[in-house]
Amino acid sequence: MTKNTKVNAAILIIGNEILSGRTQDTNTSSIALWLNSIGVKVHEVRVIPDIEAIIVDTVNHLRKVNDYVFTTGGIGPTHDDITAQSVSKAFNLKYEIHKEAFKILESYYKPGEFNKGRQKMVWMPKNAELILNPTSGAPGFNVENVFCLPGVPSILKSMLGGLRNRIVGGKPILSFTISLRTVESEIADSLTNVQNKNSDVEIGSYPFFQAGKLGVSIVIRSEEQSKIDKCYKEILLFVNKKKIEVVDR
Amino acid sequence: MTKNTKVNAAILIIGNEILSGRTQDTNTSSIALWLNSIGVKVHEVRVIPDIEAIIVDTVNHLRKVNDYVFTTGGIGPTHDDITAQSVSKAFNLKYEIHKEAFKILESYYKPGEFNKGRQKMVWMPKNAELILNPTSGAPGFNVENVFCLPGVPSILKSMLGGLRNRIVGGKPILSFTISLRTVESEIADSLTNVQNKNSDVEIGSYPFFQAGKLGVSIVIRSEEQSKIDKCYKEILLFVNKKKIEVVDR
Repeated sequence: MTKNTKVNAAILIIGNEILSGRTQDTNTSSIALWLNSIGVKVHEVRVIPDIEAIIVDTVNHLRKVNDYVFTTGGIGPTHDDITAQSVSKAFNLKYEIHKEAFKILESYYKPGEFNKGRQKMVWMPKNAELILNPTSGAPGFNVENVFCLPGVPSILKSMLGGLRNRIVGGKPILSFTISLRTVESEIADSLTNVQNKNSDVEIGSYPFFQAGKLGVSIVIRSEEQSKIDKCYKEILLFVNKKKIEVVDR
Repeated sequence: MTKNTKVNAAILIIGNEILSGRTQDTNTSSIALWLNSIGVKVHEVRVIPDIEAIIVDTVNHLRKVNDYVFTTGGIGPTHDDITAQSVSKAFNLKYEIHKEAFKILESYYKPGEFNKGRQKMVWMPKNAELILNPTSGAPGFNVENVFCLPGVPSILKSMLGGLRNRIVGGKPILSFTISLRTVESEIADSLTNVQNKNSDVEIGSYPFFQAGKLGVSIVIRSEEQSKIDKCYKEILLFVNKKKIEVVDR
């Protein structure tokens, strides 16, 4: 498999609340796990403030160097929600009422409740394709390879499935974890040897604390199960030789 | 207060485990909250893979456009820990054994336990300044305005306090939150008016679900308490007029 068959994505988290530390981002993990399952690897994540010029520049950079870009946040009804207008500028598209989105929200709300604040949520880049929202009505949208999703984690998660047929991924990225009752320094040399012999497999080493005890999780990632199996066998060899306990985690 | 007195930082999370979605980053929030308290505002966060060329390029970009850069991850003993060597390259400094770090770890471990794996953790950019680690011995380091911290959240948190006298911040960034039993679209127009009248204050609006009920938290941020108080009063005016309940959160 050549490098060219890999499919890469960037995630762009838009929101002062993440930068201030007030809110803990969980959307990166949700999007990345879902993308892995359909063969798309997240290459980069950026978190930026609610400032139009920065959003425009960052979207324009990321969409050129990645196969896909997923933005989160800034598509609600308040003054700090400026993702749709910024993406319109990035693509040099008119920012206007999206008729289909208008119809969806008009029928979603009770008569009289589709007020001016809510109507802001149907302003989008001209000809944007909607991303349906089974949780709270207001759709996301995509323009070319940029997909704009909301910031609220439960709503975002409910919208990912509907995107499946718009993303052309590679082979799913498989992952296998082996957890050991040891510390990293005890296995560092042996693990380096395994990595050197299997340079096209991604091997990560992550210390953990569980029930007061130290351990290390080794994560093996590849599109090929056979390559993961080979690394796993080589790791087990030194684990057994060093009499290190394998633990559940 | 002019724009020039603001002190900005970037956070650079280095690690495939965050990009794959396996691990949820929590270090951004820890660092950002601590920085706010000493008057430094996080302007940007990036998450990048364990790839030397990308680390070098990103460090070199971020350190030029921010007052401070904080990296997390990649300073442990295993093959995927390449932050120190990458930062050496970024600054064009020799990557070598740091004598003070060597002494610290030599006396931290029991005789015979300071093995080759652990010795990797004392390789740093020439003349790096150490960041002491009260939790697990192995220090972080800083070169000019770049501060390299470990990825394990509990260890990272324990090291921040020791950095206090190396960071020159501005006024602490103050924050006040008012939570309302409403939805964003009900207050969007009124809140926009308050924001427009107070353009140098950062006002954010964040929907939440709590005990099955919808609500909105409005966060007001500024270095000036008096500006926060002014916005708060203006918000309370429309909240009372609309008979919206203020809730604890």
